[in-house]
Amino acid sequence: MRPKIYLFGDSITEMSFEDGGWGASLVNHFNRTVDVVLRGYSGYNTRWALKVIEKVFDEETAPLAVTVFFGANDACLPDRCSAFQHVPIDEYKLNLHSIVSFLKGRWPTTQIVLISPPPIDEPTRLLYPFIENKLGLPERTNEVAGNYAKASLAVAAECGVLAVDLWTRMQQLPGWQTACLSDGLHLSKTGNEIVFEEVVEALKKKGLSVETLPVDLPVINEIDPNDPLKSFEGI
Amino acid sequence: MRPKIYLFGDSITEMSFEDGGWGASLVNHFNRTVDVVLRGYSGYNTRWALKVIEKVFDEETAPLAVTVFFGANDACLPDRCSAFQHVPIDEYKLNLHSIVSFLKGRWPTTQIVLISPPPIDEPTRLLYPFIENKLGLPERTNEVAGNYAKASLAVAAECGVLAVDLWTRMQQLPGWQTACLSDGLHLSKTGNEIVFEEVVEALKKKGLSVETLPVDLPVINEIDPNDPLKSFEGI
Repeated sequence: MRPKIYLFGDSITEMSFEDGGWGASLVNHFNRTVDVVLRGYSGYNTRWALKVIEKVFDEETAPLAVTVFFGANDACLPDRCSAFQHVPIDEYKLNLHSIVSFLKGRWPTTQIVLISPPPIDEPTRLLYPFIENKLGLPERTNEVAGNYAKASLAVAAECGVLAVDLWTRMQQLPGWQTACLSDGLHLSKTGNEIVFEEVVEALKKKGLSVETLPVDLPVINEIDPNDPLKSFEGI
Repeated sequence: MRPKIYLFGDSITEMSFEDGGWGASLVNHFNRTVDVVLRGYSGYNTRWALKVIEKVFDEETAPLAVTVFFGANDACLPDRCSAFQHVPIDEYKLNLHSIVSFLKGRWPTTQIVLISPPPIDEPTRLLYPFIENKLGLPERTNEVAGNYAKASLAVAAECGVLAVDLWTRMQQLPGWQTACLSDGLHLSKTGNEIVFEEVVEALKKKGLSVETLPVDLPVINEIDPNDPLKSFEGI
């Protein structure tokens, strides 16, 4: 059976198979070596993720890796229009610890990649409220998202798992507000490329790459044109 | 466990998670309802597909559906540069019958979608030989691909499974040679959209659609902002 990589997260994961999405790019990249399984749940924060995690991961077989990509919703401000998604930063850290513990407990050999929330472009967020925005203030700020990103990095370090600091990485790009983001929160094509590259890089550090993983069934370049069926003997 | 749809075929399936690919579009479309599993094997014909089918489908649980998309390589001409991939049309029909029989035998409830090979743009094929082309003639012709497409439709009718006649459908588009194809054989963005739409339509005929399939876990629009955790009770 082909090994798996699960993508567990919120809308930035759920939308990762839209045009140019990082999830689709991972499937294409790991073609013939890994099955990439989408487990994105739009709007979810870590509190809700913990309520569903046993149902999400109900398989016996250990996957190669799981990306855990929450925080954008936890970082909604508690006094703004998306307050019902807010999770206090201390609880966010505890919840991430619990998610990592659950995965490590179930599958000790599985690599875990904690992805931090992306940066926020506040002016653009005002154009895309999820629910009625009476205050006229953005439901998230970049500064607070940055604190949640730092918290996510801290948890990764404390647990000894892989980390992607998207918040910092994206802001290294000039004009990141529109280069990396489509609506001040979700990802543009370039933003998607960055997540794809960072996940591939992170997994490579643990020896998980297309160069090292076994390929499923004979590839066309290795099939002898003079005796094609030879390649299929005894597979 | 979320139900599955397998995509079984040659390079047109293997490449279906490239930018705008029909496989990625299916994942995005069936998000939260179905896992789409890629089983594309570049260069394979039905003869080779039969050699590997037991390894490809080694799972107990019946998937909702399997797309079977072979024929482009079977239709390589026996006296041209890709002759090693050629399968005579009578054997192609028998092989498709065997593939359908295997799937029906293993999973009687699974829907099978036979997708015909696409049309061929011969002048463009000359620009993309897979191996050295000493003759200077295209390795495939549109007419012969059409015969294989008809054979695939005949098998679908004989077996009572779903069919997509890509060869006819694509040629209804003016300028299909470049509109639907990227290299005279593989798919452009528009070609990928057509396959995506046709597969969704075919499955809908058997009641498999996002309107009818159960959704995995509470969706954000149904979560009460005043009591979010209520949605997660007893899931």
